[in-house]
Amino acid sequence: MPRVRVTRLLHFNAAHRLYRPDWSDDRNAEVFGACANPNWHGHNYDIEVTVAGEPDPETGYVMDLGELKRLVNERVIDDVDHRNLNLEVPWLDGLNPTTENFVIAIWDRLAGRLPEGVDLERIVLRETPRNFVEYTGPGPDRS
Amino acid sequence: MPRVRVTRLLHFNAAHRLYRPDWSDDRNAEVFGACANPNWHGHNYDIEVTVAGEPDPETGYVMDLGELKRLVNERVIDDVDHRNLNLEVPWLDGLNPTTENFVIAIWDRLAGRLPEGVDLERIVLRETPRNFVEYTGPGPDRS
Amino acid sequence: MPRVRVTRLLHFNAAHRLYRPDWSDDRNAEVFGACANPNWHGHNYDIEVTVAGEPDPETGYVMDLGELKRLVNERVIDDVDHRNLNLEVPWLDGLNPTTENFVIAIWDRLAGRLPEGVDLERIVLRETPRNFVEYTGPGPDRS
Amino acid sequence: MPRVRVTRLLHFNAAHRLYRPDWSDDRNAEVFGACANPNWHGHNYDIEVTVAGEPDPETGYVMDLGELKRLVNERVIDDVDHRNLNLEVPWLDGLNPTTENFVIAIWDRLAGRLPEGVDLERIVLRETPRNFVEYTGPGPDRS
Amino acid sequence: MPRVRVTRLLHFNAAHRLYRPDWSDDRNAEVFGACANPNWHGHNYDIEVTVAGEPDPETGYVMDLGELKRLVNERVIDDVDHRNLNLEVPWLDGLNPTTENFVIAIWDRLAGRLPEGVDLERIVLRETPRNFVEYTGPGPDRS
Amino acid sequence: MPRVRVTRLLHFNAAHRLYRPDWSDDRNAEVFGACANPNWHGHNYDIEVTVAGEPDPETGYVMDLGELKRLVNERVIDDVDHRNLNLEVPWLDGLNPTTENFVIAIWDRLAGRLPEGVDLERIVLRETPRNFVEYTGPGPDRS
Repeated sequence: MPRVRVTRLLHFNAAHRLYRPDWSDDRNAEVFGACANPNWHGHNYDIEVTVAGEPDPETGYVMDLGELKRLVNERVIDDVDHRNLNLEVPWLDGLNPTTENFVIAIWDRLAGRLPEGVDLERIVLRETPRNFVEYTGPGPDRS
Repeated sequence: MPRVRVTRLLHFNAAHRLYRPDWSDDRNAEVFGACANPNWHGHNYDIEVTVAGEPDPETGYVMDLGELKRLVNERVIDDVDHRNLNLEVPWLDGLNPTTENFVIAIWDRLAGRLPEGVDLERIVLRETPRNFVEYTGPGPDRS
Repeated sequence: MPRVRVTRLLHFNAAHRLYRPDWSDDRNAEVFGACANPNWHGHNYDIEVTVAGEPDPETGYVMDLGELKRLVNERVIDDVDHRNLNLEVPWLDGLNPTTENFVIAIWDRLAGRLPEGVDLERIVLRETPRNFVEYTGPGPDRS
Repeated sequence: MPRVRVTRLLHFNAAHRLYRPDWSDDRNAEVFGACANPNWHGHNYDIEVTVAGEPDPETGYVMDLGELKRLVNERVIDDVDHRNLNLEVPWLDGLNPTTENFVIAIWDRLAGRLPEGVDLERIVLRETPRNFVEYTGPGPDRS
Repeated sequence: MPRVRVTRLLHFNAAHRLYRPDWSDDRNAEVFGACANPNWHGHNYDIEVTVAGEPDPETGYVMDLGELKRLVNERVIDDVDHRNLNLEVPWLDGLNPTTENFVIAIWDRLAGRLPEGVDLERIVLRETPRNFVEYTGPGPDRS
Repeated sequence: MPRVRVTRLLHFNAAHRLYRPDWSDDRNAEVFGACANPNWHGHNYDIEVTVAGEPDPETGYVMDLGELKRLVNERVIDDVDHRNLNLEVPWLDGLNPTTENFVIAIWDRLAGRLPEGVDLERIVLRETPRNFVEYTGPGPDRS
């Protein structure tokens, strides 16, 4: 049966800094450069959440994209939009909010929440139009 | 030998509605929301057709993109541009024109039409800049 | 005092056709080509609404963009999104929905609805990424 | 003689919050909503700086865009990129960093710094792809 | 009567170099940098041609955009697409092909060719997504 | 352990033509059309370089994107930006600079240059916004 990937794009913006509290300021500045600025900086993030499955023979949908949007809003966007990623997001607590660590944490917020027969397939997280990450989950690389 | 993927992006626009004639209007509205509007709505679709193969040692082309453009125009765009997807496209007849069903039907219009040694690899169909589907054919998922 | 222009971009999609009921089908097809298709076609429209004024010395806002978004949604988007522009929009009644006629009608929906001291300055309406119109109102051309 | 406008687009990202220190937290939250978050949020800003003049008959340039880029970097970007707009930018000191106040302050950083015969014409500052401001200076509106 | 601006976007690509044959190679390199490379470089140009007028009460069009596209293709694109701007375009002969000189020359190719009652209003020529010029003609600046 | 893909987008522009010196001009024109123009044409190329690996538990980086940018600039962009791909790039010598041949040559410039534990995963090379190629290396297709 044909398997189709369906993607919904959403936006949010947030403040963050890259740093490790167990490192000195100098070490943080050396490794993370301007991104370690103690006064923060921020981004307009774009997130593309891709799910995959066989289209339902009744509806022709893999999944209602309105439902997917609600799920991503509820589990991710509502927690991070107009927030400080280092200080205000319980599920990022203790993590240095690089896009790599962030996309894995977002995956874990969404995995296991999709309807029966629908797989979480790929998340693309764009920090700027020039820098982005993709994650396909902890299993064998599928994409 | 190196295998390269080559993509051509094309555009069209069309009217459609999501509904099943065997369902009541209420059921259609409940499942498909505003997309079930009996008076139609429409989109500017973007389609990315990706083919793959080894570049021809003579030309350095996997496939002449002008030829690919002509093929997609002839087999797909000419039939759907400025048309009603529910009423006017023989190869969508009887299908609810979700992007999922639509991308599979487009695949079937193009599969087997490519030059020897060139594979149809992936089709991305964007209904809006925020909603899109990808299809890699009925076989084992390659992408 | 400094006058600043502030713009909010919104999206909607709709079906339409270009035709005049008082013309024959042949005449409509001759003048409007594929856009006259009796079975409709549609677009993802982008609309940019620009207002101008002096930033409020207290807030630093010309106008709260959340308010502008609500106004455009209430007066425009709610009426046209997922609708048929020829059949379902009272304030387009009797108009051939070219982008030119459409942008003037949108202007008339918004003019006079802005806060004291804020001018409606310009509306850009994009029918496709390649075709768009701008309107600055019925007065002397300001932009 | 023909007058041409020439634009250079640059990027930066920064943290900020919208608030007035002389207002209560409640009042700030009421007026500025999520943008008043005391823990900051941030954006990828795009800035388009437009200058105008007659092309130099020798070079065919209104102005060397490399020079314009250097000027905008030196006078604006170097001060705001990866910074906190409320805390770290001397020329924004005491200002609520709305895009309106920000674009006027950027204008003042660039005005009077252009080569003889070249006018600063317009600055467009995009806070998100959906929200942006334009400023043409304190004189009579030219654009 | 309401005056509306209507824009059509078109694309082409071309090779060029910036240099003056009456200058030494050193002087050209000093002023134009890498753009003076004797072996050429090139761009994907985007051109937006804007016309203005009152919508025709019969058609609702300021001008048929298909006609505008044909005019720009015939007078501009056909001469420059996949060409060398320094060597192969008669109407650029003797000009250093900066975007400033180029946009003025394009204006002169289109001015006076529009239907009665339709004005050529503005041309935007994008050499890269980060560098672009606008021209509104030799008369008093209207935009 | 989770494997994440990290991408950096860069730009350059260049002149080229498609042709084989061992073919007649007629044969080149027949196969490559306007792209064979002996006077060259050119493009604004976009290149997306994707690397993959496990985020470093210390930094949260798969790889510092500043380092990746420096590597791509040093090994690729510095050699091709504002250059003629047929005449001036030693590592393209003897190749017909189709995007297919070009992307493979870029891969070979970057392969084996990444830090321990980081794989070169995919290169996307866009010749125009409508034409692009992807390459995942000479081994078994991973993406």
